[in-house]
Amino acid sequence: MNFGEILVWELLGTAALILLGAGVVANVVLKKSLGNNGGWLMITIAWGFAVFAGASIANPSGAHLNPAVTLGLIATGNSNFGWAEVPAYLIGQMLGAMIGATLAWLTYKLQFDTHDDPAGTRGIFCTGPTVPNYGWNLVTEIIGTFVLVFWILLSPAAAPGDGGVPTFGNSALGYAAVAFVVIGIGASLGGPTGYAINPARDLGPRIVYALLPIKGKGSPEWNYSWVPVVGPIIGGVLAGLLFQILPVG
Amino acid sequence: MNFGEILVWELLGTAALILLGAGVVANVVLKKSLGNNGGWLMITIAWGFAVFAGASIANPSGAHLNPAVTLGLIATGNSNFGWAEVPAYLIGQMLGAMIGATLAWLTYKLQFDTHDDPAGTRGIFCTGPTVPNYGWNLVTEIIGTFVLVFWILLSPAAAPGDGGVPTFGNSALGYAAVAFVVIGIGASLGGPTGYAINPARDLGPRIVYALLPIKGKGSPEWNYSWVPVVGPIIGGVLAGLLFQILPVG
Amino acid sequence: MNFGEILVWELLGTAALILLGAGVVANVVLKKSLGNNGGWLMITIAWGFAVFAGASIANPSGAHLNPAVTLGLIATGNSNFGWAEVPAYLIGQMLGAMIGATLAWLTYKLQFDTHDDPAGTRGIFCTGPTVPNYGWNLVTEIIGTFVLVFWILLSPAAAPGDGGVPTFGNSALGYAAVAFVVIGIGASLGGPTGYAINPARDLGPRIVYALLPIKGKGSPEWNYSWVPVVGPIIGGVLAGLLFQILPVG
Amino acid sequence: MNFGEILVWELLGTAALILLGAGVVANVVLKKSLGNNGGWLMITIAWGFAVFAGASIANPSGAHLNPAVTLGLIATGNSNFGWAEVPAYLIGQMLGAMIGATLAWLTYKLQFDTHDDPAGTRGIFCTGPTVPNYGWNLVTEIIGTFVLVFWILLSPAAAPGDGGVPTFGNSALGYAAVAFVVIGIGASLGGPTGYAINPARDLGPRIVYALLPIKGKGSPEWNYSWVPVVGPIIGGVLAGLLFQILPVG
Repeated sequence: MNFGEILVWELLGTAALILLGAGVVANVVLKKSLGNNGGWLMITIAWGFAVFAGASIANPSGAHLNPAVTLGLIATGNSNFGWAEVPAYLIGQMLGAMIGATLAWLTYKLQFDTHDDPAGTRGIFCTGPTVPNYGWNLVTEIIGTFVLVFWILLSPAAAPGDGGVPTFGNSALGYAAVAFVVIGIGASLGGPTGYAINPARDLGPRIVYALLPIKGKGSPEWNYSWVPVVGPIIGGVLAGLLFQILPVG
Repeated sequence: MNFGEILVWELLGTAALILLGAGVVANVVLKKSLGNNGGWLMITIAWGFAVFAGASIANPSGAHLNPAVTLGLIATGNSNFGWAEVPAYLIGQMLGAMIGATLAWLTYKLQFDTHDDPAGTRGIFCTGPTVPNYGWNLVTEIIGTFVLVFWILLSPAAAPGDGGVPTFGNSALGYAAVAFVVIGIGASLGGPTGYAINPARDLGPRIVYALLPIKGKGSPEWNYSWVPVVGPIIGGVLAGLLFQILPVG
Repeated sequence: MNFGEILVWELLGTAALILLGAGVVANVVLKKSLGNNGGWLMITIAWGFAVFAGASIANPSGAHLNPAVTLGLIATGNSNFGWAEVPAYLIGQMLGAMIGATLAWLTYKLQFDTHDDPAGTRGIFCTGPTVPNYGWNLVTEIIGTFVLVFWILLSPAAAPGDGGVPTFGNSALGYAAVAFVVIGIGASLGGPTGYAINPARDLGPRIVYALLPIKGKGSPEWNYSWVPVVGPIIGGVLAGLLFQILPVG
Repeated sequence: MNFGEILVWELLGTAALILLGAGVVANVVLKKSLGNNGGWLMITIAWGFAVFAGASIANPSGAHLNPAVTLGLIATGNSNFGWAEVPAYLIGQMLGAMIGATLAWLTYKLQFDTHDDPAGTRGIFCTGPTVPNYGWNLVTEIIGTFVLVFWILLSPAAAPGDGGVPTFGNSALGYAAVAFVVIGIGASLGGPTGYAINPARDLGPRIVYALLPIKGKGSPEWNYSWVPVVGPIIGGVLAGLLFQILPVG
């Protein structure tokens, strides 16, 4: 698959992921939404199905949707794509995340305009810690992302890729499996930092939040923004390296 | 498949869809229901499984259940049915939606009769915006329906139709996949307008609401009724057109 | 399959169904349970997975678990079993339901003993209407059961039986599909009467409730008990008859 | 598969199981978690998907993750492994459970440190009864585990092992099926004792709770600790013995 095709599929899939993912938080947070106060379970279920929808759409490119997945696969030393394709994945993911966040804002435009706590809308776009502490927040993001990527590498739901390393699965069942694991990670490990577990999912919408003309909006909290980028990359790469030494296959 | 068979299967499937879909809203809204105040998550999960049940039943006709799906498939220019069959789909969908809404009313007859806010029962039948604004409400419905139809066209869960264009999938797994996506759209994009994302789902029950002898019922809000018809059609057709230019297959 | 084997498998499967089904209501109703006040959605999801567990176990006998399913299949005129086997199904289902209800009581023995409203424990065992009216309550049970049996007869998730009539599916995916539909029926159509949609599910535990030494327990409400028996049978048989005239296969 | 490989896979799978399982309880219990007060349904869904994630990872060793499953399979007299492998399973499960509980603590380190009821954190690690009574608490754990292991032995979702006895299924669908049943058991039978239904799941994290430097933590309640070990073993072995006398296959 050529550079452009990878970029397009990752862009489309990640846009769907973030449109639905940011959308459910908007639904729960914004006062004039029908799902207002819908609870954490609804957020985690909808993010899971957001991954399901986005991954199905990005099926042709392997449905990474996440730089931590792309780099974790590379770290196995046995991926079915190489460093030359990595920029296509990352650029597609970042652009897609920004487009998806913008679409979520358009979907909830009237609810944003009538919301009485505009500074609290940052959480719709990007994550933040309930107790700020760079070190421990990093630990949380590393563990959550490690579980995701390690599971992808080992699950029988993930069909083997060309190079012997499993990818997301190329099948509806594989994507449903990923959705279940993402729901589990959100419900179980999302409490401290909001489970970015994906650099593009956090940084792309954070940039969009900084740019969009949301009345009375709060700070994008740039000082924290490196944590949900660096943590997931570390977690994904650690999963790829551990996979190398396991007696698989 | 002939005109009559398409009409019958779409009618049966859409009737099941709306019976279960209107049913869950009745359960949550009506005071003397066991699921009263059951929350938005229950509504979205039940609508998802309503699609699952209805689509399984309408399997022989391709399980459109939704004019936006029918027209989105036509818009790809490569559907496994033609304009001659479109009226069979649309008539079946509309009649089914009206029958389903009537059955939901019969199921909850005693709860309707004992409800102390009969004017608030319109939401059981058809959708409405939390913040009225024709333009932005249209945007919300277009985006939600685009995600649905675009996903149907691209998901590996959807088996290819005769003409090369995927249909709903012809399988239990494909219908479960659709259910997951519909749950996701409801939880994520349903906050502003109640996610009609289907002209028959909204217009059919709205007509039934206007006709049924519900004591003290409110207005059917005909002035808004074109939004959940036009928006989903635009969203579905846009998805079909974008599909044409993608390097699929 | 001989009479005794059918009876054993239906007994085991229905016992699991009712143990889990009565169990979740006990969990929500009884004050000293960890799931107290868990909500209607939890009840419907757990009943769905109760069907999944019970149907998987009763796979060898076709996993009816429900006289309305057994009689609905007979009503198609094309079932892969005959009237000679019907008593084996019904006896197994009734005995299983009674055993399952007893096991649920044993599981929650301490919670029953410490519950401060023992008269309110009937709902753990059997259903009742929120607004009593024999006619309309019957309508509700007929519609809910019709959806269940009609779906079973038509869903592609149900593998064809020997006689050309689909059965539950003989597969994990088929049973998951049934679970989703049962969750949908519970959330959507369970509000008025608590969705018995199964004569054995209601009558068996009602008899057990009458017999068990629950301190201060209320009346088993025998006057209502025929509704969740007759309604589901009518609904199942109607589905079987309608199936006969559809152009299937 | 040799001793060491079994141990490694069971360790990795059980670590994932307990990391996610203890994690969701931490999310619900700890005040500064985003999922605080998330409810019993979220706990049961996340434990189900924790089993799904852990079982997928431990696929090569048969994905027991639970001494009650290992011993239940042995009790059938027809398992695809022997007593020589049992220590590898049990040691891997216990070590994995302890590692997983430690990781959950690290994930929520800041939330533990800022929690204002540190004595109430035991429930994040191990189970306890709402009404203490060794005999009846045992009954509850026996029944819950019996359902789990009996279902595993009989479900068509579980592929047959080498010796004719089904194992967890070796497939994404089989593990999803297990997840659904575990969600059902939690929602339906978890109310009285918190459904350990797995000796390693309870004892491993209880030991970790006793060892970790949690400020102001409560007692590990050693006097109760044998119940969630002995009960699940009895339940699993009973299921294996009953399986022997059923006319399967």
